[in-house]
Amino acid sequence: MSAYRMLQWQQPPQLMEVEVPEPGPDEILVRVAGNGLCHSDLHMMHMPGQLGPTLGWQMPFTLGHETAGWIERWGSRVTGLQQGQAVALVSPTSCGSCHECLSGHDNVCGHNGVGRGFGFDGGLAEFVLVRDKRSLIALEGLEPLTAGPLTDAGATSWHGFNRIRPQLLPGANVLVIGAGGLGSFAVQYIKLLTQARLIVADIASNKLEHARSLGADICVDSSAVDLGREVMQLTEGQGVVAVLDFVGNEQTIAAGIAVLGKLGSYGLVGGEMGGYPQPLFHALASKEAQIFSFMGPTIADTQAVLALAAEGALVNEVEVFELADVGEAYRRLGAGELTARAVIRTSG
Amino acid sequence: MSAYRMLQWQQPPQLMEVEVPEPGPDEILVRVAGNGLCHSDLHMMHMPGQLGPTLGWQMPFTLGHETAGWIERWGSRVTGLQQGQAVALVSPTSCGSCHECLSGHDNVCGHNGVGRGFGFDGGLAEFVLVRDKRSLIALEGLEPLTAGPLTDAGATSWHGFNRIRPQLLPGANVLVIGAGGLGSFAVQYIKLLTQARLIVADIASNKLEHARSLGADICVDSSAVDLGREVMQLTEGQGVVAVLDFVGNEQTIAAGIAVLGKLGSYGLVGGEMGGYPQPLFHALASKEAQIFSFMGPTIADTQAVLALAAEGALVNEVEVFELADVGEAYRRLGAGELTARAVIRTSG
Amino acid sequence: MSAYRMLQWQQPPQLMEVEVPEPGPDEILVRVAGNGLCHSDLHMMHMPGQLGPTLGWQMPFTLGHETAGWIERWGSRVTGLQQGQAVALVSPTSCGSCHECLSGHDNVCGHNGVGRGFGFDGGLAEFVLVRDKRSLIALEGLEPLTAGPLTDAGATSWHGFNRIRPQLLPGANVLVIGAGGLGSFAVQYIKLLTQARLIVADIASNKLEHARSLGADICVDSSAVDLGREVMQLTEGQGVVAVLDFVGNEQTIAAGIAVLGKLGSYGLVGGEMGGYPQPLFHALASKEAQIFSFMGPTIADTQAVLALAAEGALVNEVEVFELADVGEAYRRLGAGELTARAVIRTSG
Amino acid sequence: MSAYRMLQWQQPPQLMEVEVPEPGPDEILVRVAGNGLCHSDLHMMHMPGQLGPTLGWQMPFTLGHETAGWIERWGSRVTGLQQGQAVALVSPTSCGSCHECLSGHDNVCGHNGVGRGFGFDGGLAEFVLVRDKRSLIALEGLEPLTAGPLTDAGATSWHGFNRIRPQLLPGANVLVIGAGGLGSFAVQYIKLLTQARLIVADIASNKLEHARSLGADICVDSSAVDLGREVMQLTEGQGVVAVLDFVGNEQTIAAGIAVLGKLGSYGLVGGEMGGYPQPLFHALASKEAQIFSFMGPTIADTQAVLALAAEGALVNEVEVFELADVGEAYRRLGAGELTARAVIRTSG
Repeated sequence: MSAYRMLQWQQPPQLMEVEVPEPGPDEILVRVAGNGLCHSDLHMMHMPGQLGPTLGWQMPFTLGHETAGWIERWGSRVTGLQQGQAVALVSPTSCGSCHECLSGHDNVCGHNGVGRGFGFDGGLAEFVLVRDKRSLIALEGLEPLTAGPLTDAGATSWHGFNRIRPQLLPGANVLVIGAGGLGSFAVQYIKLLTQARLIVADIASNKLEHARSLGADICVDSSAVDLGREVMQLTEGQGVVAVLDFVGNEQTIAAGIAVLGKLGSYGLVGGEMGGYPQPLFHALASKEAQIFSFMGPTIADTQAVLALAAEGALVNEVEVFELADVGEAYRRLGAGELTARAVIRTSG
Repeated sequence: MSAYRMLQWQQPPQLMEVEVPEPGPDEILVRVAGNGLCHSDLHMMHMPGQLGPTLGWQMPFTLGHETAGWIERWGSRVTGLQQGQAVALVSPTSCGSCHECLSGHDNVCGHNGVGRGFGFDGGLAEFVLVRDKRSLIALEGLEPLTAGPLTDAGATSWHGFNRIRPQLLPGANVLVIGAGGLGSFAVQYIKLLTQARLIVADIASNKLEHARSLGADICVDSSAVDLGREVMQLTEGQGVVAVLDFVGNEQTIAAGIAVLGKLGSYGLVGGEMGGYPQPLFHALASKEAQIFSFMGPTIADTQAVLALAAEGALVNEVEVFELADVGEAYRRLGAGELTARAVIRTSG
Repeated sequence: MSAYRMLQWQQPPQLMEVEVPEPGPDEILVRVAGNGLCHSDLHMMHMPGQLGPTLGWQMPFTLGHETAGWIERWGSRVTGLQQGQAVALVSPTSCGSCHECLSGHDNVCGHNGVGRGFGFDGGLAEFVLVRDKRSLIALEGLEPLTAGPLTDAGATSWHGFNRIRPQLLPGANVLVIGAGGLGSFAVQYIKLLTQARLIVADIASNKLEHARSLGADICVDSSAVDLGREVMQLTEGQGVVAVLDFVGNEQTIAAGIAVLGKLGSYGLVGGEMGGYPQPLFHALASKEAQIFSFMGPTIADTQAVLALAAEGALVNEVEVFELADVGEAYRRLGAGELTARAVIRTSG
Repeated sequence: MSAYRMLQWQQPPQLMEVEVPEPGPDEILVRVAGNGLCHSDLHMMHMPGQLGPTLGWQMPFTLGHETAGWIERWGSRVTGLQQGQAVALVSPTSCGSCHECLSGHDNVCGHNGVGRGFGFDGGLAEFVLVRDKRSLIALEGLEPLTAGPLTDAGATSWHGFNRIRPQLLPGANVLVIGAGGLGSFAVQYIKLLTQARLIVADIASNKLEHARSLGADICVDSSAVDLGREVMQLTEGQGVVAVLDFVGNEQTIAAGIAVLGKLGSYGLVGGEMGGYPQPLFHALASKEAQIFSFMGPTIADTQAVLALAAEGALVNEVEVFELADVGEAYRRLGAGELTARAVIRTSG
C-alpha cells in the first residue's frame, strides 16, 4: 500500500509503498478513508534528530493523526466489531490503566508522547493499525473521508470549551483569540451550546469574516486596536468570564489575562510560547481568576464532538486532496495558503 | 472609648478617645474582646495619600479587621440576637446582592475595598459597628479574645486549601511554601482533613520547626537547596498535585509551577508580586496544570474555620497585648520579632 | 390603590382599595406592570385556616408572586436605584445571611415560607413593597408587563434544567414529563443550550403540539402508551441520562426512574405526591442513578432566565387580563381553560 | 492447585484440585496470598440456576473476589511488571473502553456482571488469572494476606463516602446506618478525613461498640429508639447533611430520608430492598435533598483505599482461616458468628 513516511530526521517525508500491516491479537486494521493534515506534522519534519529517540519515536514512520475510515479486520481477542463499519480514530494515545486514564483524563496519559503519526505509523496510508478498541469511535451518519479533523482540531477545541462551559451563563461575555482551525470550532461550540455573548479576535480579516459567518457576536481586528482595551470597552468595564487563546504569544496572553472579569478563566491552547512577566498576584488575585492550559483531547471529548457533528450541527470545512498530492497539500499548509483543513483521500 | 486610629496619610496611627457609635436600624454594636494585627495594617500606614480617596476610604478611621467580641446592642430592624452573645466578625465586606455574593463568592464582591479597618472604623477600639447580620458568626465554645485571627489569616488560608482539597487524595504529594501566619493554618487543614503527604518549604528554620510540630511530613529549607529540584526528588519525579504559595516572589512562583504534576494546581496566596516570564504553555500544557489566585475568604470559609476551631482541632497561636501597647505590638510585627499572631485586648 | 386580597381563610379573595405602602429605610416601592397567576394561588384560596398561622402568614394579604414593574421610590438607606427603572422581582424570599443563602442556595432559605403573595402583600396591586435590593433584577429590553412568569415558572424550570445540564452531552437522550407552564420552559432550555435528543411526554395532545413547536425531538402521548416501555424502545434500551418530571404522580415517578440509564438523574419538580413503593436499591444501584427534588428558583436562576429572555431567545406565552378581570382569570386557570400563562395588567 | 469451586447451581461449593491456568498474551497470573469472604458469595450458593446463564456466568467457577497476592508470570504483550511484586486485585470487572470507563465510572461498566468470583474463576485458589493490567494495584507496605477485603468492602464504602464528602464541612452532622463490614470502613473515612460530627446507628450493641472504638461521636441503638426522631433530637432539629445506609430496608430508608437536612444526600448502599411508598416530593423538595445508590467501587476508589491503608491509617480487622477450613469459615459467616472479615490463606 502507499504511505507518506518520515524516513530521516530533517528530511522531507516521502510517498512510498509498504506492506499492509497484520493486526496482532488485540489490534484492529482500519482502511483509511481520509486523514487531515496538521501544523504539528510540519514541526515534525524540522525536528532536531536527537529529540526523536528521547521521545521514544522509531524511524521511519507514517505521518497522520487525524484519521477516519472503515474496519477491515482484527485480531483473535477482539470482539464486537463489524467489517466495513465506519470509524474515527481517537487522536492521542493512552494506556487505559494509569491514574489519569482511570479518571477520564486520558489526554495526560504518560503514553501520549508516542502514537499514530507521532513516531509510530499513522493514517497517511491506505491502512492503519489501531492498538485497541479504546481508540475507535463508531461514526453514525458522518462521512469517514472528512471526519479526521474533528478528532484533533475539533476535539482539542472542545476540551477547552468544556472547561469554561460552566461559566458561560446566558448573556456572559466570552473571548476567543484566534479564529483558525481550532478557534473556529470553539466559535461554533459557544454559539451552539450557550447563549453567551461571543467576542472573537484575530489579526486576519478573512478569519474574522469566517467567525462572523459562524455566529460570532463581535469581531475584533487585533492588528488594528489594543485588544485588551477594546474588550474592556465592549464589555463596559466588566471583562469576560472566560478566554480561549488559540495563539499564545506574550501579547495575547497579556491581553487575555487583563480582560478577565471576576472568577474568570484564561485557557491557553495555542503554543506560541509567551510568558507573563508582570506580577501574577496583581493580575489574578482581586478577581480570583485562573489560568489553565492543556494538550489534546480526551476520548470522551472526541466522542462528544463526533456526536455533535452527527447531528449536522457543525461546519467542518475541509479541502480534499488525493494521496498523490500530499506533498503539495503540506506545502500549501506551511505557506498559509489554505482556508480550510486539508484532508488527504487515501483509499480510492 | 479608646480607639487606635489613622488620622493622616503616611502618619503613624494614634490611640485616642472617640464617641461610642450608635447603631442604625440594621446595624449591630459589638463590644470588642480582641483584635488581631495584620501585615496589611502596616502597609496602610505607608500608603500614598492619593490612593485612599481612589479606594473610597474616609480619613480618619480606626484600624483592625480581625475582630471578635460580644453583641452589645442593635438597631430597630435587627432580630434574633442576644445581648452578650459571643461573635466573630467576618473580615471582608460584601453587599449580599451582587452576582458574586449570590453565588457564594462574596470575597470578590465589588464592595470589599472598603470595610472595617479599611477606610472605615475597625476593631481596634472598645466597640465596633457592624453593618448587618451577614457579618456576624456566633462563637460556640471559642474565646472571643483570640478568635479574630481565625477570621482573616485562618479563613484566607482555608479558602486556598478548599480549592485544592478535591485533589488531595490519600498519599498524594502537596507543597506549602511559606509556613508563617497563613501557611501554618494550611499545614493544619491538610493534616486534619486529608491523608496527603505534606511538604513544607520556608527559609526560616523556626517556621519549619513549627510546621513540623503541626505535622508536616517533610520540611525543606529553601534557603539551602533548589526548591524545585528538591521537591522533584522527594516525589520521585512525579511532582505534587497542588501547591499553596504564601510567598509569591519570582523564585517561589517558578519553583511552585515547576513541581506541579499532572492536573496539578498552583495557588498563589502571597502577594510578593513575582511574574512568570518563561513560556506558560511549556510550563502548563503537557500536564494540564492550572494557576489560581485570590484575596480573602468568603463568609462560608470563615464559618468553616470557626467550626473547626470550635472542635478544638486548631492551634491558633497568639500573643496578647493590651490596647495601650498597640504601637509596640505593631513595631514588633514590622520588625519580624513576633513568632505568634499579635492580638490586642480592647475590653478590660 | 386597587389590590386583589385574601381576607379570610377559605373565602374567595376580593379586589379592593388599600393605601399605597410607604417604603422603610431599606425598602423599595415598585409600581407593578404585570403579575402572573400561578396554580399555587388557587391552593392558597382553599388552604385550611389553621395552616396559615403555622406558616407565619398574616391575614389579610395581597396575592401575586410573579411580578415585574418599575421602581417608584425607596428608603433612606437604599442606594444605586433610578426612578422608573424596569425591574423584575425575585419570587421566593430569602434572608441573605444563613448558611444556604451564603452558598448560593437561597431557594432553601428558612425564610422562604413567607413572602410577597405568600402571607405577605404581593404583586396583584398597583404597587408592591420590596424588602431589599437582593429581590430586584434590572430588566434589559424586556417588557415588565409580561416578565413576571419568567421569575417563577421560568426560573423554577431553569433550576431543574441547570442541575441536569452537565449530563446533557451531545446526542444524549433526555426526557421531560409534562409540557405545561413549567415543562415548556425546560423544553426550550434543553433545545437552546444543549444538543441532547429531547423526548417530551404528556397526556394532552395540545401540550405535545406546543412542545413540538418549541423543538422537542420526539413527543410521546403517555395516555396512549406505556411511557417507560416506549422510552426504552426509543432509546434502544439505553434509557435517558436525565428526567425532569413536572407531574410527580406514582406513574410518572415509576416510569421516570425506570427509564434512567447509567449515572442518570431523575428530577422531581411536580408535586402530585407520588411515592416509590418498589425496591429503591433495585431501581438505582446497578446504574448508580439518583433522585432529586426542589422547590423554587434561586436568585441566580432568575437572573439567568431573564438574561436568556433578554436575548430574545425564549417564548414566554402569556394572555393579558385587566386587574378588574382577575377573578375571571383565576376561574379560567382553575378550570384548565388557559393555554398560556395569565398575566394581570395592574398599572394603567 | 487447590480451588474452592461452585460446581452446580444450588449445591455447596467444593474444595478440589484444578490445573494452574496459563496466562494469555495480555494476562497476568497472580499467586494468591489471601482472599476475603463476602456475603454475596453466600447469595451465589443459593441463586436459582436459570439466573446464571442469563448473567453470562459459566459453571463451574472458583469463588472469591477480595483478592491480593504476588505476581507470578505474564503474557507476551504485558510489560512493566516484576515477578514477586505484591498486588491487590480490583474487585469489579470493567472493559476500559465504554463511555463509563472512559469517564472514571468503571463501576457501572456493562461488563461488571461477570468477573473473578462471579461466574469466572476467582481468588479462592493458589493462583488466579487477571485479564489485564488495569486490574492490578501495587501494594506498598501492605500485607497481601489481608489486603483483599480493602478492595471490596473497603472500596465500596469509600465510593459512598466520596460522594458525600464535599458536604461534610467541619461540624456538620452525618449519619451512618449499619456498622458492619462496610459501615465500619465509612466510620473510619469520616473520622480520618473530615471534622464532621458522626452519628452511627445499628441494632447490634457489639457493632456500636466497635464503631465507638473507631471514633464515632454518637452511637444510636436503633432497636431501642425511633431512629428518625432520635437523630432529629441529637441535631437539634437540623437533621444531617448526609446519610450512608448500609442496611436499606423500608425502616432505614424512611428514617434516613426523614433526617436529611437542607441540601442533604441519602446514599443507599445496603441492598435489603426497601421502597419509599410515602410522597417523594414531600420528603425531598422543600430541602432540595437527593437520593443516590450504587454498586461496587471504581478502580480509583480501590487505589485511594489502598493508599490510605498503606499509610497505616486504617483498621482492617480480619480473621485468617486456612484454605482447608473455607467451608467452616463460610458457615460462620452465614451464621453471623464472625466479628471480623474472614480471609482465607491460599498460599502456604
